[in-house]
Amino acid sequence: MAIKLTIWNEYRHEKENPLVSAIYPDGIHAALARGIAPLIDVSITTATLDTPDHGLTETVLGNTDVLIWWGHKAHAEVSDEIVERVHRYVLGGMGLVVLHSGHHSKLFRKLMGTTANLKWREANDKERLWVVAPGHPIVDGIGQYIELEAEEMYGEHFDIPEPETLVFVSWFTGGEVFRSGCCYRRGKGKIFYFRPGHETYPTYKHPDVLRVIANAVGWARPAHSFELEVVPTPPAKPLEVLPPR
Amino acid sequence: MAIKLTIWNEYRHEKENPLVSAIYPDGIHAALARGIAPLIDVSITTATLDTPDHGLTETVLGNTDVLIWWGHKAHAEVSDEIVERVHRYVLGGMGLVVLHSGHHSKLFRKLMGTTANLKWREANDKERLWVVAPGHPIVDGIGQYIELEAEEMYGEHFDIPEPETLVFVSWFTGGEVFRSGCCYRRGKGKIFYFRPGHETYPTYKHPDVLRVIANAVGWARPAHSFELEVVPTPPAKPLEVLPPR
Amino acid sequence: MAIKLTIWNEYRHEKENPLVSAIYPDGIHAALARGIAPLIDVSITTATLDTPDHGLTETVLGNTDVLIWWGHKAHAEVSDEIVERVHRYVLGGMGLVVLHSGHHSKLFRKLMGTTANLKWREANDKERLWVVAPGHPIVDGIGQYIELEAEEMYGEHFDIPEPETLVFVSWFTGGEVFRSGCCYRRGKGKIFYFRPGHETYPTYKHPDVLRVIANAVGWARPAHSFELEVVPTPPAKPLEVLPPR
Amino acid sequence: MAIKLTIWNEYRHEKENPLVSAIYPDGIHAALARGIAPLIDVSITTATLDTPDHGLTETVLGNTDVLIWWGHKAHAEVSDEIVERVHRYVLGGMGLVVLHSGHHSKLFRKLMGTTANLKWREANDKERLWVVAPGHPIVDGIGQYIELEAEEMYGEHFDIPEPETLVFVSWFTGGEVFRSGCCYRRGKGKIFYFRPGHETYPTYKHPDVLRVIANAVGWARPAHSFELEVVPTPPAKPLEVLPPR
Repeated sequence: MAIKLTIWNEYRHEKENPLVSAIYPDGIHAALARGIAPLIDVSITTATLDTPDHGLTETVLGNTDVLIWWGHKAHAEVSDEIVERVHRYVLGGMGLVVLHSGHHSKLFRKLMGTTANLKWREANDKERLWVVAPGHPIVDGIGQYIELEAEEMYGEHFDIPEPETLVFVSWFTGGEVFRSGCCYRRGKGKIFYFRPGHETYPTYKHPDVLRVIANAVGWARPAHSFELEVVPTPPAKPLEVLPPR
Repeated sequence: MAIKLTIWNEYRHEKENPLVSAIYPDGIHAALARGIAPLIDVSITTATLDTPDHGLTETVLGNTDVLIWWGHKAHAEVSDEIVERVHRYVLGGMGLVVLHSGHHSKLFRKLMGTTANLKWREANDKERLWVVAPGHPIVDGIGQYIELEAEEMYGEHFDIPEPETLVFVSWFTGGEVFRSGCCYRRGKGKIFYFRPGHETYPTYKHPDVLRVIANAVGWARPAHSFELEVVPTPPAKPLEVLPPR
Repeated sequence: MAIKLTIWNEYRHEKENPLVSAIYPDGIHAALARGIAPLIDVSITTATLDTPDHGLTETVLGNTDVLIWWGHKAHAEVSDEIVERVHRYVLGGMGLVVLHSGHHSKLFRKLMGTTANLKWREANDKERLWVVAPGHPIVDGIGQYIELEAEEMYGEHFDIPEPETLVFVSWFTGGEVFRSGCCYRRGKGKIFYFRPGHETYPTYKHPDVLRVIANAVGWARPAHSFELEVVPTPPAKPLEVLPPR
Repeated sequence: MAIKLTIWNEYRHEKENPLVSAIYPDGIHAALARGIAPLIDVSITTATLDTPDHGLTETVLGNTDVLIWWGHKAHAEVSDEIVERVHRYVLGGMGLVVLHSGHHSKLFRKLMGTTANLKWREANDKERLWVVAPGHPIVDGIGQYIELEAEEMYGEHFDIPEPETLVFVSWFTGGEVFRSGCCYRRGKGKIFYFRPGHETYPTYKHPDVLRVIANAVGWARPAHSFELEVVPTPPAKPLEVLPPR
């Protein structure tokens, strides 16, 4: 059965910066949709910041198995209410793939509990993402590394909880390294953070990058039809006979 | 050098419920202070909810190596500003020991990124905390298990991230189990969640419980004089020569 | 495409103990095969100790996606050569599901690096396996817990490395707990240890137990067609220009 | 109380290769002893391959809190019996610090359960070890990274179990990365693998490298006076009343 995938994009750079719109004329979300669709059985919805509820209504989220998140310059404009809502769906079982500068989104920081701070530099570093978890479903079809001729640099220390599985570690020309593919579970939901994708580079047209994102969507898919968690308020009945108090 | 320990207590039950004040006439914080002091080299400060800044001023936190947190019925009354402040200190390196119902505190939920929901029952269950990480510094001096004749039951599923180290698993008479001793690192800070300690039981007078809390304080102590994290805003200079753009 | 599943069974108790043969007249392997087949798309081979190569030839292993292992009284009779061979296939990507007393097999101990010692008692304890990782594919279709009216008791401390994901924790009538569902990755292979299944109980006819084993087979399936690891002996050529020595 | 530290060295290169003996005239073990002694309260014993029991008698191990292991070309000459013995002490609680090419020692492979294979190259790569776990006791006194002007390259994929805590990630000039500081617990013992230290470079004279090794010795020290594990053979008596069979 097709995975119900929702791709969320801030969609500002593409409308404001000609350099970016030249690469992604229809937006990063459209490029991702085009790139992923042939690789995995998905039905895709897109959603962007400047629409009601940022496009993330209860109806949309209730019909989402996996959500991809790309944001950068407008993290602060994402409403707290929507962040709470998406957070609730992730804990309930919705998969989440956070891309690149999404590390600083309210959503990712709330899920991690840390600042998610890092070093960065826009200087056309070469990035080489080494696979450190061969055999993991997210690297199916990927060789020993992915090479990106030019990308923004992200460097350690990256302030995140220890990943449950570390899948990629990046090498950069300027001398830095970065944990660039990180798996987590929170509640019933699976989360994958994937580093590459600065808006001024055609990274989301790179076949290996698209392959990894498609694999991550498959990996993060809920194991079963999930339901939102209900707080267990009443006292739990004992399952064994308790002695009289 | 003595560890600078601050014990934070909500301190409401003890003033409102005669059953509790009979056990902890000076408050849970005072009982903890008395119980821990002989076990480890500490200088202890206490702080409670109903004081300015809940007793957790920048000055107090700046002089704290490890913070113990006990709260239950008034989590909502802890100000968001103080939660942000304490959170910042934990990420900066301050150790944190969260006790019992502190699982639902704003602070712990913010650090975990999950609901921290669980099952519960007040019915005098016996609790037996089994050591599953022998050799860990937190169980120094503890046998194979700790037995508490009567306690509140906490049962799985406990909605927390996978612990980095699971130290205790509890057995309850009524048929439940619980991950009752859980280690995490967030930022530069170490966090230990320890389950026992419902206010209507004399749990914080039990020598093994006090031993574990004292050990946890030693374990959570910052490795070195810590400093608050500064967001690395400017672009990072390359450490190797970059080719011209 | 059907998962190529090989079920390995020591197959001694069933031939020597009437109590066991009454429950599993064709052997535990046959009962597992019958129970799993309707639940997941598999093509099943079985193999037993008292056949050439214990039934685990290079041909058989080369045609195995996932191997189930049940052994108990004859661990020492499994040849070291076959253990080395199976170990090599696991590191190469073959999934492995180790059941019950398989914890003390040469294979599991070799993969864990520890003794895998534990406490045990045959006394008809009730076992209740609590799900501590809801949302994990291995518990798809399982409720909050699985209840087994009578089983052998296994108790902590269980001498294993910290599981990468802990899926089940067991409660026993006699007062013990046990980490009874444990996920690991070693090399490219995934490993799941699952506790229940003493030979004198009809545990492998319980629908939830079979459901978990079938789920585990699906989870442990190699992400992609795997190849055996080749030791990288020659010096690696640099990917960037090195300065002259 | 001083930590009882035993430094084990293969001690062959230093006697056979003038290049190495020029750097370490008394052996790597002696250089390590000289470098660590001023940094932490230790009483040091050294042991080498070409002595009875490789210097690792029951008496020596019984008086060892932490063992450092350096080996390279003669892994195969370490007797299986001594490997079993040391393994037993690690599981019993003795700390272990494995250096550089010790990754391929029988001991480390036995503890990991994997091949510990990796890529390598001797070509004077610069190595920069980035701290990815700031606040961890092993990086006390270390800045954001350690820089080594020339070292042997070790590259991913490094075939090890997912580290419980990843402390360092290395960058190499030639374009590779490596998980170069890895923490594990096995049984009651703590294990730290630390990458640098090829015999043809003066790495063990570098103050930061020595600082890390000394910190690791402090971290790996047993929490309490440890005893060797005894296999729990007899059935465990129930702690609660069992119903009649």
